[in-house]
Amino acid sequence: MSRSVESKPLSDTARVDQHSVEPFPGSTKIYVAGSRDDIQVPMREISLTSTQVRGHEGEVRLEPNAAVRVYDTSGPYTDPNCNIDIRNGLAPMRDPWIEERADTQILPQESSSYTRTQLQDAELDQLRFEHLRKPRKAIAGRNVTQMYYAKNGIITPEMEYIAIRENMSLQQAKEQGLRQHPGQDFNARIPEEITPEFVRQEVAAGRAVIPCNINHPEVEPMIIGRNFLVKINGNIGNSALGSSIEEEVAKLTWGIRWGADTMMDLSTGSHIHETREWIVRNSPVPVGTVPIYQALEKVDGIAEDLTWEIMRDTLIEQAEQGVDYFTIHAGVLLRYVPMTAKRMTGIVSRGGAILAKWCLAHHQENFLYTHFEEICEIMKVYDVGFSLGDGLRPGSIADANDEAQFSELETLGELTNIAWQHDVQVMIEGPGHVPMHMIKENMDKQLRECQEAPFYTLGPLTTDIAPGYDHITSGIGAAMIGWYGTAMLCYVTPKEHLGLPNKDDVKQGIITYKIAAHAADLAKGHPGAQLRDDAMSKARFEFRWEDQFNLGLDPDTARAYHDATLPKDSAKVAHFCSMCGPKFCSMKITQEVRDYAEKQAQQAEGDTTQLTDVEAGMAQKSAEFIAEGSEIYKQGFAGQESE
Amino acid sequence: MSRSVESKPLSDTARVDQHSVEPFPGSTKIYVAGSRDDIQVPMREISLTSTQVRGHEGEVRLEPNAAVRVYDTSGPYTDPNCNIDIRNGLAPMRDPWIEERADTQILPQESSSYTRTQLQDAELDQLRFEHLRKPRKAIAGRNVTQMYYAKNGIITPEMEYIAIRENMSLQQAKEQGLRQHPGQDFNARIPEEITPEFVRQEVAAGRAVIPCNINHPEVEPMIIGRNFLVKINGNIGNSALGSSIEEEVAKLTWGIRWGADTMMDLSTGSHIHETREWIVRNSPVPVGTVPIYQALEKVDGIAEDLTWEIMRDTLIEQAEQGVDYFTIHAGVLLRYVPMTAKRMTGIVSRGGAILAKWCLAHHQENFLYTHFEEICEIMKVYDVGFSLGDGLRPGSIADANDEAQFSELETLGELTNIAWQHDVQVMIEGPGHVPMHMIKENMDKQLRECQEAPFYTLGPLTTDIAPGYDHITSGIGAAMIGWYGTAMLCYVTPKEHLGLPNKDDVKQGIITYKIAAHAADLAKGHPGAQLRDDAMSKARFEFRWEDQFNLGLDPDTARAYHDATLPKDSAKVAHFCSMCGPKFCSMKITQEVRDYAEKQAQQAEGDTTQLTDVEAGMAQKSAEFIAEGSEIYKQGFAGQESE
Repeated sequence: MSRSVESKPLSDTARVDQHSVEPFPGSTKIYVAGSRDDIQVPMREISLTSTQVRGHEGEVRLEPNAAVRVYDTSGPYTDPNCNIDIRNGLAPMRDPWIEERADTQILPQESSSYTRTQLQDAELDQLRFEHLRKPRKAIAGRNVTQMYYAKNGIITPEMEYIAIRENMSLQQAKEQGLRQHPGQDFNARIPEEITPEFVRQEVAAGRAVIPCNINHPEVEPMIIGRNFLVKINGNIGNSALGSSIEEEVAKLTWGIRWGADTMMDLSTGSHIHETREWIVRNSPVPVGTVPIYQALEKVDGIAEDLTWEIMRDTLIEQAEQGVDYFTIHAGVLLRYVPMTAKRMTGIVSRGGAILAKWCLAHHQENFLYTHFEEICEIMKVYDVGFSLGDGLRPGSIADANDEAQFSELETLGELTNIAWQHDVQVMIEGPGHVPMHMIKENMDKQLRECQEAPFYTLGPLTTDIAPGYDHITSGIGAAMIGWYGTAMLCYVTPKEHLGLPNKDDVKQGIITYKIAAHAADLAKGHPGAQLRDDAMSKARFEFRWEDQFNLGLDPDTARAYHDATLPKDSAKVAHFCSMCGPKFCSMKITQEVRDYAEKQAQQAEGDTTQLTDVEAGMAQKSAEFIAEGSEIYKQGFAGQESE
Repeated sequence: MSRSVESKPLSDTARVDQHSVEPFPGSTKIYVAGSRDDIQVPMREISLTSTQVRGHEGEVRLEPNAAVRVYDTSGPYTDPNCNIDIRNGLAPMRDPWIEERADTQILPQESSSYTRTQLQDAELDQLRFEHLRKPRKAIAGRNVTQMYYAKNGIITPEMEYIAIRENMSLQQAKEQGLRQHPGQDFNARIPEEITPEFVRQEVAAGRAVIPCNINHPEVEPMIIGRNFLVKINGNIGNSALGSSIEEEVAKLTWGIRWGADTMMDLSTGSHIHETREWIVRNSPVPVGTVPIYQALEKVDGIAEDLTWEIMRDTLIEQAEQGVDYFTIHAGVLLRYVPMTAKRMTGIVSRGGAILAKWCLAHHQENFLYTHFEEICEIMKVYDVGFSLGDGLRPGSIADANDEAQFSELETLGELTNIAWQHDVQVMIEGPGHVPMHMIKENMDKQLRECQEAPFYTLGPLTTDIAPGYDHITSGIGAAMIGWYGTAMLCYVTPKEHLGLPNKDDVKQGIITYKIAAHAADLAKGHPGAQLRDDAMSKARFEFRWEDQFNLGLDPDTARAYHDATLPKDSAKVAHFCSMCGPKFCSMKITQEVRDYAEKQAQQAEGDTTQLTDVEAGMAQKSAEFIAEGSEIYKQGFAGQESE
């Protein structure tokens, strides 16, 4: 299944997934400029059709509906003006910003001995990404993390870019005079407006991270923190059983098309190094990895053979390729491992299991824990962020919130403080499988133990009994924990526990998690979050079908479902929906109610003669309604159909 | 699309949907007897394979796993001993129970004039269900509701049947010594054990309903109440645009196969009366309807032409066919209608819109409100329950929890008291579209205003922006409101807002809502709810793949997904999962941790010589682990594969 011997090199043949570069219907890619010309923040703008308003004489007037700008993770792939060629990778947009800080150097050669060996292996030529970049690293003694800059009062271009991106909905809501429900944010600090200075403050305080390795200049800056929009991560990566490099790149471009804010490459199969190069060079979103997976491959899968030296070289190898954050399972302590023995499902995190095995085999403390400060030293010269892994997360409802899980979380809190002393950015990974009523305890403990470092959770799955539907069992938990304060939700696909996700599974997982993240933004009362819901509901009420499809998270599926019942094009402008049919539509009746109420109000204002007889008044109103209301939607108006 | 003129009558040709009568894999239909021979409560028992345990000499021992009994809504369709013929309908199991109460009579002819006209229409012969039952009704002056019996201290066979059904998981949990997480039930009254007397008390107090019309003796009794398992409803029904009678029966049998506890027939198209007869006669679950839909058809869709007399005849028509509960929108008061004019999406309930239009056209109070006591008089002589409709529920996030919605809810509380004075059973319908943080307010207000009458909610949808995925947007809200205290969740399919659901959409909706309901049961701490999760997780940890598939809500999909990655039969006994592959499996490593911890504990107990040197002890443990642990899963053991 994985590519082994082929005639033509991949750098000749690789093509972008065509489904990932199709423009979204009714949408335009726009760029909002910042304070300098090279800050150009991408957004997708969805054009809407006009509302048909009937005047008093029955004439139809058109009232325009403002276009809706939505957060766009899809990168240059959906910009028809960009020439996409995955053999070249994306443009290194951030290079000037990194260079002008004058705190980095281009290295003459790769620092990782493994990388150097791989580069000399001619057999890998056919798989290799052609336009390799020379690695960049901080000048000796310098710290190049966004947290370092933030603590020193510097607003980077990355921060300004993010402020524009995050403030988009609020901006529109203000322009349109939108009001939304006040949220319940559990003592978060969501501001009235997202400014560059606010971004800086949140990064400085450790409450938010900007994953942007200096070796990944292709990334479009984004932020992960409780006081910003809730983000989602999608996983890709080959395994011993699976898929080619080209397929993995296609999963990347497909995942970000539907809304993945970051992508983790969890490859465990062949050619991990080469696969990652293709992914990073073509990714406009931050890329995360679990470096111990690759380290384990280097010792042929024998956990007890792992050493700090191999791990160290792997961290440097990946940092110089441009990975933006590393999952590091430094909280799996020797003394915690026996706590898992009495569990229903023991240790289900792969990284956690590897380290538990290593700890037991050597009867020594986890080498990621004992070498934690050395890891920080590596992270800060590339600006790689920590995602402190929850190696002891529960793998079943039965094991939720147990001693092993919470002990590790306490250790992650300690490590957070150490990382922050190095100005290294930190996220904390969370569970797993947790019943609904035990979710909030996780969030509260995480905020307390880890001083509000962003929480990054997998689900959690709220029941174990639905294999094949774990995007849904976990989407429920994800929405709730997002509301409670989780900053990024790691997606789960329908294939969880069963198999490797294909492209459709990736899409199902992403859309489910976009729903969870947005539901959380609404519940927190994120400024402007309700804008898209309101635009959708107005379009729905006015039977603007095309607008409904286009405003949705997945226009293709919405349109296909509508076609299944009412396939004709004329049905797309029909003033009824397929649930009720043309004769019997509640929304149509509501319009009559509205017209009536308006008329009533007008009369109350304009009519100075008082009705002397209540009964007569009632009868009159009734007669008026029948005369005027019943014929409001005249046959043939706006394409109404009957079957 | 709907059946019009055909050569052969439906009563000759109709066949059960073959997919609905296939046995579930690894499952047996069993019946648990009550205190009398004719109480036989159906359950599905899932057999499990044994656990392979290695002894100290490396020998493999088999430890059996207890079969798991699950709540079974599928009726006789999944009993291979039942001869299913939808032309005959199901056996009238409850007839003896109803007869022995000696408070009913068989009527010489149907009471509804509409029914009598339909029966005389020769053109309908080809559609007609052949074996029509003569209607049954209370003897003059008698009340035949389960609430009436309950208030008078009578434990009916229906109540005992329900107690056995609801107590099943607790019973098994006790036998197996299962412990589960304590729940958070928000001051519900979930007992240690569900007894017939507890069922009686809950029905008497109005906190639970048993929908079981005396004209629907085919029903397998079930209960809807906050202190019982959370239930789900599936909707079927044709429309002006849709489907045949046979298709509707197939959707019924398909829906209950996957777990619908009740089914609502929402038909609005042709032959509503005839379609319903086929549905009721073939339904082992309670059937609900919205009678105003049919009443409107009788006046050619012109809401203002509706009269109390037509409605009254329709209620009697449907009650004598055996409908178990009626949605009655009696809370849509004239004075509330203008409150909806300023809404984003006005009135989205069809029933609500019809009544609003009627109220405005006549400028009179809703005739369902003014005739409410007369409706109660009808309900109590057949034991039809109320589902008091929320005609003013919000149809968008923007409209959630507004004045119109909550005003109506207060009126529903008043009506609940009136119905209870007649000993008529009552549920209250709830929203709709509500962001997460505003859901609990709905539940709390409902409990307060309606004195804990069971809440029956549609979703709620937690965001508007995902047409095509509203089973998910609403599944999130459904799980939460179920946890907070909702007794029954009305499903939403992926086609919501877009089109008419097909069989696959029905299944997606049902499974999503089974997940929501079960997640709620776990969170409330319903006794024994965790049993199935634990069985699943143990099977997962032990790589008993077939058991995992069979224990899941949808074995077919789980198996198909596993096949997609590891298609070979031998993979179904493989000791690794496809996410990691054979070399690299966290669950495998965990088993090693567990063996190690056990060995450690044994040594600590048995070994009386104290280690004098800590370093030496560490080294020894390490050596032991490597010698014994690394080879635990020997090549070829239990079908392990390598690729």
